[in-house]
Amino acid sequence: MLKGYTSPRTPLGRSGLAPAPPWHYVSNSLAVEFDAAPDKVAAFLPEGLEPDSGRCAVYFAEWQFATDTGEEYLDPVGSQYKEAIFLVSARYQGSAVAYCPFIWVDQDIALMRGLVQGWPKQIGSVWVTRSYELPSKAAPVLGPGGKFGASLAVKDRRLVDAGVTLREPSASLPAPGFARAFNVRYLPDLAAGAHDRPAVHELVQLRSRDVQFSPIWKGAASLTFFDHPTLELDELRPLRVLAGYRFSFAFTVDDLVHVRDLRAEAAMRV
Amino acid sequence: MLKGYTSPRTPLGRSGLAPAPPWHYVSNSLAVEFDAAPDKVAAFLPEGLEPDSGRCAVYFAEWQFATDTGEEYLDPVGSQYKEAIFLVSARYQGSAVAYCPFIWVDQDIALMRGLVQGWPKQIGSVWVTRSYELPSKAAPVLGPGGKFGASLAVKDRRLVDAGVTLREPSASLPAPGFARAFNVRYLPDLAAGAHDRPAVHELVQLRSRDVQFSPIWKGAASLTFFDHPTLELDELRPLRVLAGYRFSFAFTVDDLVHVRDLRAEAAMRV
Amino acid sequence: MLKGYTSPRTPLGRSGLAPAPPWHYVSNSLAVEFDAAPDKVAAFLPEGLEPDSGRCAVYFAEWQFATDTGEEYLDPVGSQYKEAIFLVSARYQGSAVAYCPFIWVDQDIALMRGLVQGWPKQIGSVWVTRSYELPSKAAPVLGPGGKFGASLAVKDRRLVDAGVTLREPSASLPAPGFARAFNVRYLPDLAAGAHDRPAVHELVQLRSRDVQFSPIWKGAASLTFFDHPTLELDELRPLRVLAGYRFSFAFTVDDLVHVRDLRAEAAMRV
Amino acid sequence: MLKGYTSPRTPLGRSGLAPAPPWHYVSNSLAVEFDAAPDKVAAFLPEGLEPDSGRCAVYFAEWQFATDTGEEYLDPVGSQYKEAIFLVSARYQGSAVAYCPFIWVDQDIALMRGLVQGWPKQIGSVWVTRSYELPSKAAPVLGPGGKFGASLAVKDRRLVDAGVTLREPSASLPAPGFARAFNVRYLPDLAAGAHDRPAVHELVQLRSRDVQFSPIWKGAASLTFFDHPTLELDELRPLRVLAGYRFSFAFTVDDLVHVRDLRAEAAMRV
Repeated sequence: MLKGYTSPRTPLGRSGLAPAPPWHYVSNSLAVEFDAAPDKVAAFLPEGLEPDSGRCAVYFAEWQFATDTGEEYLDPVGSQYKEAIFLVSARYQGSAVAYCPFIWVDQDIALMRGLVQGWPKQIGSVWVTRSYELPSKAAPVLGPGGKFGASLAVKDRRLVDAGVTLREPSASLPAPGFARAFNVRYLPDLAAGAHDRPAVHELVQLRSRDVQFSPIWKGAASLTFFDHPTLELDELRPLRVLAGYRFSFAFTVDDLVHVRDLRAEAAMRV
Repeated sequence: MLKGYTSPRTPLGRSGLAPAPPWHYVSNSLAVEFDAAPDKVAAFLPEGLEPDSGRCAVYFAEWQFATDTGEEYLDPVGSQYKEAIFLVSARYQGSAVAYCPFIWVDQDIALMRGLVQGWPKQIGSVWVTRSYELPSKAAPVLGPGGKFGASLAVKDRRLVDAGVTLREPSASLPAPGFARAFNVRYLPDLAAGAHDRPAVHELVQLRSRDVQFSPIWKGAASLTFFDHPTLELDELRPLRVLAGYRFSFAFTVDDLVHVRDLRAEAAMRV
Repeated sequence: MLKGYTSPRTPLGRSGLAPAPPWHYVSNSLAVEFDAAPDKVAAFLPEGLEPDSGRCAVYFAEWQFATDTGEEYLDPVGSQYKEAIFLVSARYQGSAVAYCPFIWVDQDIALMRGLVQGWPKQIGSVWVTRSYELPSKAAPVLGPGGKFGASLAVKDRRLVDAGVTLREPSASLPAPGFARAFNVRYLPDLAAGAHDRPAVHELVQLRSRDVQFSPIWKGAASLTFFDHPTLELDELRPLRVLAGYRFSFAFTVDDLVHVRDLRAEAAMRV
Repeated sequence: MLKGYTSPRTPLGRSGLAPAPPWHYVSNSLAVEFDAAPDKVAAFLPEGLEPDSGRCAVYFAEWQFATDTGEEYLDPVGSQYKEAIFLVSARYQGSAVAYCPFIWVDQDIALMRGLVQGWPKQIGSVWVTRSYELPSKAAPVLGPGGKFGASLAVKDRRLVDAGVTLREPSASLPAPGFARAFNVRYLPDLAAGAHDRPAVHELVQLRSRDVQFSPIWKGAASLTFFDHPTLELDELRPLRVLAGYRFSFAFTVDDLVHVRDLRAEAAMRV
């Protein structure tokens, strides 16, 4: 009897790449809201979601992770990671929701947890300015005038540079946000003739619990997308850059909502 | 209509982490055959495979990859990678086959192609001695007396060191080998209450075509497994180290055999 | 006229690996005091320093860096880095001082700044548990009971694991500390016959200014050194592990004291 | 008595970042000759070298390294590395020579050996297409029509892309080449008021022995420099891209020629 929440599954079940939920997360995050072309955003939405607007947000986060019993944060090479997450606006059954077209992370354990949730994760290099509890010319203040930067690179190419200058506390989070986020879980088949008939293709809604936020700082932002020979991120290039945000958040994941099986969908359409 | 063989699926279909097959591979490989405890090997086998013996092999390979049209090898940051693959002996319908309990690779694209095939891939750091076409004190000869080393590390811990001293040409490849290799494709559910009812859990057999081998060199080998606080690789610790091998091989993948749905299996057993 | 504080020196002087001082630093640090064998510590001291005791300390730090004008922290891939620093006890002209036998850092810019100061830097992989401003099972509290870990690995081998459980505020810093630290600047010659007659070989004392410390937390500690085939770090293996510390500190460097030219020393001894 | 060819110097002398010479090297290399603006090339030359022309070459190499006794290639994580080397044309005492304005390498041991020789090394990410001894769609032939690519990135920014399509054997190597290469050894002072009075500032000429070359393949080339916010590599941007080359070479280093002390020079000029 092999055990483990993900592969590799083993006799003792201690070797799976991602451990069994619940998954506890905490991060410092820098976010930038921006407007892309509404029709381009719409073109990225999966079956089951309706277009809403061109409003997007990108989040750069430095995470630390643990399970209930693992104290994984004591061996931080396996529990710390950085991530760049793009969310676009969509509608589901009349309500505003978020959908993730692109996400990059710098660690395989986080990548695997992501695939289970439908996050379309790839490995990327993400960096975010840190604030410290001491005044220093080497760090921004976490307050008015504090300047933060973030970057994303993929396979030795810089894709995105972001900058935020804090101005004031904010009562609201960036939007689109994680509270009502939808993903697509997808696993293709490799059998000859079936490469376009995935084993898993479903719209899911993320669930989290015990969500907490630090005070939220808001301010002016810049956001630059660089050219890339193949990645379609430039389809979401900012037409207008809106506010920037800096905050910490923490939450727990051990659930997911199956919204709609898109395999049937695809079959019916034929 | 989103396109792409794997996520992220996008309007133009050029952003998927793994491109659509066919997948062409070529590598230089160092392999070591060894005997682990037969009962420990048996404990790693999935439903559908029968125990055979304690015979195992580990392969360290430096790969280059391309599709039919991509010329991916011209941007080698995305097409070169290194891998350490463990194969153990098993039987399927009376024949000797191979099963992969552990595999590490240093690139996300290869990791995703692997998950599609059921390889239980994780990110690891793999190194293999190279030979060059010039005589040098900086490289071994690819012939009698040539000494090669290889190592595997995972999250800053050395897991395996291997050494091979070539002695003579060999007419046979290491065993267990890739010709009759079985994997388990596995994608868990995250919905509350369903963490143990995977969306995908199936035994598959690998298929490759246009397989080519260079001349095969064989010789004496050493193999050391280091302790690790959680990974169960040490269950397969060598009781006896057999021969080492060095060879190049090339092949193409665009097919897979669905052998048995293990979800039904699990359900029936309840 | 080529310009630049370090190589590469170029027409505009904007390409040097390390920028001109002043160098502003801020970090979160985890430290462990321990006792090694006094005679082994003494054997690591350079000419010009006298033995003191076996007392040592290791510091694991997450740094951010900037110059006066560069706002380097806005492109954190070049301004953030992690470091593991070993300090041993020594005496200089009758006073207790510190000497650095080993130091590892994960970035080349920091490595170059270090070589200029005589830090014997090498590239290593360093990780340190983070605390966050939100309560979470994914992070320790920065206060009584908070558990922190740190690790150092070099070329795929784990060298050191450390753990600290905070207990109480401390009025004092770990010792030996940075306030009176000595290094050796060393650049060998490569001309035939002169490999043992370095161009630079001098004892220097570090200088920093505008030093600030956060409140200091202290507690119980663990410290494990793992075997390594060549590195002599194990000569400093802990006989007794003393207290652990967690604190932030910030300072500026733009000076250094030349203490003694050890080239003359060596020549006289012949 | 501390020992070691470079820091860290230790009681047993086994911990120095770079081991004592002789240093044996072997590589597979891809090179592209190009013309930059002659006045811009001239502006990069140090005191002691005279301008020659705008002719430059960039070399991308996959190295393996060992000393006489170390068999370092058996632990390849410490003996394999990749490098991108720029050489420009210059004249010394009436003869054509080469000078290195920029060089990037992906390993600290090679960086330290480089600093000793005056190579102005920084850490970068370098990739080069490989050929294999088997025909495969995943690799180019090492012969007419074989297409090779190479790239250089520094701190998450792609700096250079190169491509070479082999056409024919060549009797000559790319120029400028390594046979008559000059570097500047440079170590600044950090004492207040002396930041511009380096401890070491000298023109040196490289020496190697036992140099061997494989057959040399030559063909058409492409070369693209990407923008960078600070690095002055773009001053050497190709006006014309000439031939590309692919070859292996091996050699040994244990000597260096001290050509001229540039500290005196600088002092006299005041």
